[in-house]
Amino acid sequence: MIDCGEGTQIRMRQMNVKTNRMGHIFISHLHGDHVFGLIGLISSFGMLKRTAELHIHSPKGLEQIMEPQLQFFCDDLPFNVIFHAFDTKKNELIFEDRSVQVFSIPLKHRVPASGFLFEEKPRDRHIKRDMIDFYNIPTWRIPKIKQGEDFVTEDGETIPNERLTASPEKPKRFAYCSDTAYYEKIIPIIADVDLLFHEATFMSDEAVRAKSTMHSTAAQAATIAQKANVGKLIIGHYSARYANKNGLLHEAKAIFENTVLGEDLKIYEF
Amino acid sequence: MIDCGEGTQIRMRQMNVKTNRMGHIFISHLHGDHVFGLIGLISSFGMLKRTAELHIHSPKGLEQIMEPQLQFFCDDLPFNVIFHAFDTKKNELIFEDRSVQVFSIPLKHRVPASGFLFEEKPRDRHIKRDMIDFYNIPTWRIPKIKQGEDFVTEDGETIPNERLTASPEKPKRFAYCSDTAYYEKIIPIIADVDLLFHEATFMSDEAVRAKSTMHSTAAQAATIAQKANVGKLIIGHYSARYANKNGLLHEAKAIFENTVLGEDLKIYEF
Repeated sequence: MIDCGEGTQIRMRQMNVKTNRMGHIFISHLHGDHVFGLIGLISSFGMLKRTAELHIHSPKGLEQIMEPQLQFFCDDLPFNVIFHAFDTKKNELIFEDRSVQVFSIPLKHRVPASGFLFEEKPRDRHIKRDMIDFYNIPTWRIPKIKQGEDFVTEDGETIPNERLTASPEKPKRFAYCSDTAYYEKIIPIIADVDLLFHEATFMSDEAVRAKSTMHSTAAQAATIAQKANVGKLIIGHYSARYANKNGLLHEAKAIFENTVLGEDLKIYEF
Repeated sequence: MIDCGEGTQIRMRQMNVKTNRMGHIFISHLHGDHVFGLIGLISSFGMLKRTAELHIHSPKGLEQIMEPQLQFFCDDLPFNVIFHAFDTKKNELIFEDRSVQVFSIPLKHRVPASGFLFEEKPRDRHIKRDMIDFYNIPTWRIPKIKQGEDFVTEDGETIPNERLTASPEKPKRFAYCSDTAYYEKIIPIIADVDLLFHEATFMSDEAVRAKSTMHSTAAQAATIAQKANVGKLIIGHYSARYANKNGLLHEAKAIFENTVLGEDLKIYEF
């Protein structure tokens, strides 16, 4: 999960999100609208008898803020909460598992802030079941073949891997950049991602205010998307002044056509 | 406001509650579902440029928990947050202004907990405009007449107050009791209130669990209402297991007919 503002657990329940397998939370920066939901979420996990460790990755300082609350309200948690502080000034690997890598993306905001780049690892090649049968390939050879190895038959004949397998899906890349002023240094880091979430707190008529509060306009978010050649842009983190978001969308689409509005409770597939 | 769980400010916005005149928050006990919304609410008040003091009345310990968060997230609040700790073992006056008195109600829960009794002060009598005109009573005499004084005319004739005024509405009394096990000691304190909110976390088939977690069943809430001779009972604080609340209502109504279900976003007039 990325960020955890007040009410996050309520939204998750509304959307029937299963949390058992949620092991890592990535916090972009230590402003209330990105962290106030953590204590309630952790507390509820405790009541649900969660046992799996929960890892929280954030700029430094969060553990010190959370610790007194955890001690007072969650003194008998049946699982461990493990804090990991990362350096918001660096673009580096902060998490990795079997299928994904997560990199920090230095942002420009009033407090130390970082975006996140999620990169799927290359997947195994798809095995062609009929070829396996045809060449009578033993099961124990299959993992290596999925990784690209050729197969040598008992007669010494080499069967090239491309006859046995098909290409896997291209690994997907998603970048999340919020909160941040317009900041061109992120462009090479997020270049060519399939999907970019970039904050668009204001419209361009509030560009001065955007700059002073270190937020972005919709036009600026779209400019980043366009210069980084991303596949699709989701904007969000709108100022409360915009009851109607169409102006923001319109402004972004004029620069980067494949833009959509980030909306509560909505699922975006890519 | 009474208690402030996570998401309270979101609900308030949904209901268009004006917060400018909200000066006092009464916290019943220091469990997360009654306090996790405070930091977000205070933080938002800051962004809304509130200047009026905010008073928080609670069992002791809340200030120590809130202070580090307030310092980190709300270091430039344009208003003061003032904590008042009260003794949850005593039934005593904890707040008073021109129109209302608030008393603590010792409850029985896993941690120190208190309910609250809100008592309107007696209102002034209603002046009869036509009588004022008839006797040509000067404006400066009116406040005293509203408080029950007779009027003496220039000729020395005494006009009894009841000819000049009508009785005011009876002061209303509201009691809030949550979280608590079944606890008969509250009965004399809340006797004859117009409206009682009493928690009803479980139905009677979970009476053992209610006792061990120090919560009440719907039947117990209704028994308190009946023994205290209250006007109306609202039950609430239901366990998440009850997707449908009709069983709880039915159980309570069998003992105390004038019971209604507490529901999110609903306004109850009395």
